[in-house]
Amino acid sequence: MGAANGKGDRMAHIDLGVDERREPGIVGLLRYRPETAGPLMDLAEVLLRGPSSLSRGERELIAAYVSGRNGCDFCRASHSATAGAQLDDGPDLVDRVLADLSTAPVPEKLRALLRLADAVREDGRAVTGELVDAARAHGATDREIHDVVLIAAAFSMYNRYVDGLGAATPDDPRAYAMSAQRILTAGYRA
Amino acid sequence: MGAANGKGDRMAHIDLGVDERREPGIVGLLRYRPETAGPLMDLAEVLLRGPSSLSRGERELIAAYVSGRNGCDFCRASHSATAGAQLDDGPDLVDRVLADLSTAPVPEKLRALLRLADAVREDGRAVTGELVDAARAHGATDREIHDVVLIAAAFSMYNRYVDGLGAATPDDPRAYAMSAQRILTAGYRA
Repeated sequence: MGAANGKGDRMAHIDLGVDERREPGIVGLLRYRPETAGPLMDLAEVLLRGPSSLSRGERELIAAYVSGRNGCDFCRASHSATAGAQLDDGPDLVDRVLADLSTAPVPEKLRALLRLADAVREDGRAVTGELVDAARAHGATDREIHDVVLIAAAFSMYNRYVDGLGAATPDDPRAYAMSAQRILTAGYRA
Repeated sequence: MGAANGKGDRMAHIDLGVDERREPGIVGLLRYRPETAGPLMDLAEVLLRGPSSLSRGERELIAAYVSGRNGCDFCRASHSATAGAQLDDGPDLVDRVLADLSTAPVPEKLRALLRLADAVREDGRAVTGELVDAARAHGATDREIHDVVLIAAAFSMYNRYVDGLGAATPDDPRAYAMSAQRILTAGYRA
């Protein structure tokens, strides 16, 4: 489950009472504290899979992009897998967005929403009227702007939760691919 | 409700369909999108008011401190009021912690937990084993360390949600005092 000294082998800062190789990242944290796991996963389910004019793939891509920009390897890999499995151009498109948003082949509306998400991630006060207007000029609705701001804010939480507690982060891509298939089938509340 | 050009007079980036002077900050956002309001307030209720070996006042103080460090005036003022109303030394202690944690008259365990929270707020990867060990050396339990990390992560979300959407922020301290009394009586889910 990862090279020696890799994040796959690290132990969380607290004793989670789980086998972190089997329940890495946020999974072990959710198991440790079910009282907070409920609302955390309810929020993810509504934001990433609930009714929306943004597709599930687009929303997972925003989650992956924010997590990548925040340097949270577990969340970046998890949501890149979930986005890749639900977008037409799949993993290649996700990789291109995470590598360079300015040249990635995405619709301009989605590019503007990803730029908005990145500002939220940096600091809520970094969101300017210009960023919001740019998204709106490409067709984004108020509801979409609201949800993108909250997705970026929520991943600024999930990323800090996982890395702040030093949760294990598998190196093997198959771990994320399997997890993505479970989420596609059963959602975040399962 | 605030001087001209103050944050009390600003309008959110999107049309919330509420009177933002009556429902400022996160209140208008929760009204706008009830599907996300539920899990957001369930999380706050568990973290800040649910069963814990940290007092409600201590947890609100952590929320106020993180919000102040993130520059989110609405959340800082809201949770400072809620903390001040539930701590023995009240508003004066909150002000001293927010002004200078290193000299504020708080127990060393709480100071270590506030330092941990500040690292999470900065970046999950800024949490070191030394910060965790310092909290533990002053008596913090694994559950307390978990909850403080998640409180700091959650306020890194709430702060970005409020400021990322440019929600109105009253200048009048009475608005926050009244809101704090409602939270003390009825909690966050009300």
